[in-house]
Amino acid sequence: MRASIKDIAKITGYSITTVSLVLNDKGDKFSKTARERIQETAKNLNYRPNRHAVSLVKQHSKTFGLIVPDISNHYFAQLATGIERGCQKYGRMMFLCNTNDQHVRNIEYINQLAEMGVDGIFDILSGDTTQEQGMEELQLMNDLEIPHIFVDRFLDAPEFGGIRNDHIRGGYLATKHLIDLGHRRIACVTGPKLLHDARQRYEGYCKALIENGIRPEEQMVYQGDYSVQSGEEAISAWPKDSYTAVFACNDASAMGVSRALMSRGISIPQEVSVVGYDDAIYSQMVQVPLTTVRQPIQEMGMAAAKCLMDVVQDHTMLQEHIVFEPQLIVRASTARRRDL
Amino acid sequence: MRASIKDIAKITGYSITTVSLVLNDKGDKFSKTARERIQETAKNLNYRPNRHAVSLVKQHSKTFGLIVPDISNHYFAQLATGIERGCQKYGRMMFLCNTNDQHVRNIEYINQLAEMGVDGIFDILSGDTTQEQGMEELQLMNDLEIPHIFVDRFLDAPEFGGIRNDHIRGGYLATKHLIDLGHRRIACVTGPKLLHDARQRYEGYCKALIENGIRPEEQMVYQGDYSVQSGEEAISAWPKDSYTAVFACNDASAMGVSRALMSRGISIPQEVSVVGYDDAIYSQMVQVPLTTVRQPIQEMGMAAAKCLMDVVQDHTMLQEHIVFEPQLIVRASTARRRDL
Repeated sequence: MRASIKDIAKITGYSITTVSLVLNDKGDKFSKTARERIQETAKNLNYRPNRHAVSLVKQHSKTFGLIVPDISNHYFAQLATGIERGCQKYGRMMFLCNTNDQHVRNIEYINQLAEMGVDGIFDILSGDTTQEQGMEELQLMNDLEIPHIFVDRFLDAPEFGGIRNDHIRGGYLATKHLIDLGHRRIACVTGPKLLHDARQRYEGYCKALIENGIRPEEQMVYQGDYSVQSGEEAISAWPKDSYTAVFACNDASAMGVSRALMSRGISIPQEVSVVGYDDAIYSQMVQVPLTTVRQPIQEMGMAAAKCLMDVVQDHTMLQEHIVFEPQLIVRASTARRRDL
Repeated sequence: MRASIKDIAKITGYSITTVSLVLNDKGDKFSKTARERIQETAKNLNYRPNRHAVSLVKQHSKTFGLIVPDISNHYFAQLATGIERGCQKYGRMMFLCNTNDQHVRNIEYINQLAEMGVDGIFDILSGDTTQEQGMEELQLMNDLEIPHIFVDRFLDAPEFGGIRNDHIRGGYLATKHLIDLGHRRIACVTGPKLLHDARQRYEGYCKALIENGIRPEEQMVYQGDYSVQSGEEAISAWPKDSYTAVFACNDASAMGVSRALMSRGISIPQEVSVVGYDDAIYSQMVQVPLTTVRQPIQEMGMAAAKCLMDVVQDHTMLQEHIVFEPQLIVRASTARRRDL
């Protein structure tokens, strides 16, 4: 049997992550001694990286791991439930790992899940993941020879296969709805800018504006992080009366926007229209039920499970995206611009 | 080293659960052949059950498992986040297992977590767990020699140690608040009757009524299951005008009650007051912010982690309850009885 990254880690005493980074020429931050020792050991063992196939000799534990950024965020809780239902259908148990949106914890959990012998990993990237770190995360799973797919969040790289939504379309639908109601000064609270899905929602927003002859303006865009608080901060940051509508890139930040507007005595939708994104359970229970963009979470969950089963069975790496279409759900938080 | 239940399972080919049940005289449902084979093997291996101590020779994986009934229920998502924060403080990773409130899946996950070598388990019972099944679940963890504590839900047995809330006090606070507002006809939507915590909330409700000279009436109590739907069903089941206030034993069923009342044109709190339980995130975002009972989830999470660390270190079984005090949070859904 050929030598693996695990063998090298065991022999040298360095962690799998360290070995993986060094052997992929990303080990600059480690000492020269460490790098030399790892490279020498790899050479002695005749190590060859195996990037596009997973081991054929693995035992099946009938378990999958799911790495999520924040389980107390209702969207991820729902998505996890959907994926778990899918796993059950295929007779797999699922272990959930919560990262608090920290890339470093994705890495820890990937190592630990591999150690525990799960058959595959559903990976959702953390909000602080840079392009480089995302590539490292992918590389680590390849080096550990653990079947994996990405769900929901992606980086701009063809290697990132998995299940996602067409968020450009989602952002477009939300913004076009506001434009159709006569709004022209439409503010936007974005998600974490490192995240592909957040950038896509913003891209959809810009696309709808431009198509309708409205120039996107930088001062109308607040860089948020998908939290309630960032929605509240956005309202504090924008000059009053500078907008008649807000597109918040998720429901949590839309809640923050709504709360901040109401606490200032600004009525929704009479004075300001608000659109969210996700269709979280609370979006229809709130004071002014929220117009939002729904992602087909249950279907995504089932598809994710099927997809990872295929990856495990075919011993391949998934390099395509399975893309779902979001849907606009119109509720009471949006109305025709009142001065029209 | 002495023989374990695992050894017997391996030799006989039966599952750990089966072996555990048979050796604890709870194997009536299995064939005579199976029972005899297991008992004979146990005898040959000189097997002795080990009920009150955990193995001293285990390797530490620095991981814990948390078994939760329903991760899409915001209360459990918050509790999981709290426990995970506690685990992090002690340098432990946490794997979350979702059971969809099915006892059979608690059993599956306990076996799997033990198999994977976690150092300990936080167990939350499923809503369908009978007294007998709960004892079997406890017995299984003892037989697997896996350190464990119960969190949030308990059975009436001294062996069930762990972290919980004083739900009698919680149910009492909610009901007493309504009585203080002049209500006498107070309906109640309970949780699953098998659950200790649900029965305690109901007990607190009865206690407050009786202390104030109101006789609890069976037809005013709807047997719910902590779901939004069961709150809606309760309103359909009760005759209109037979009550002026409702105590729903969790926020989700209080949401159902509120939705059903509003859809019938009954105003909250002018016509009917509603109290929930949990202080879920949405309870203050809804149309009429909900008066509710708050459980100190973050503190519970930290205490649970500390407690399991102690159990692991001391190689003992926890046989005491660490009890937290709930707190009444008054919002807009309760008001003085209007005919007073």
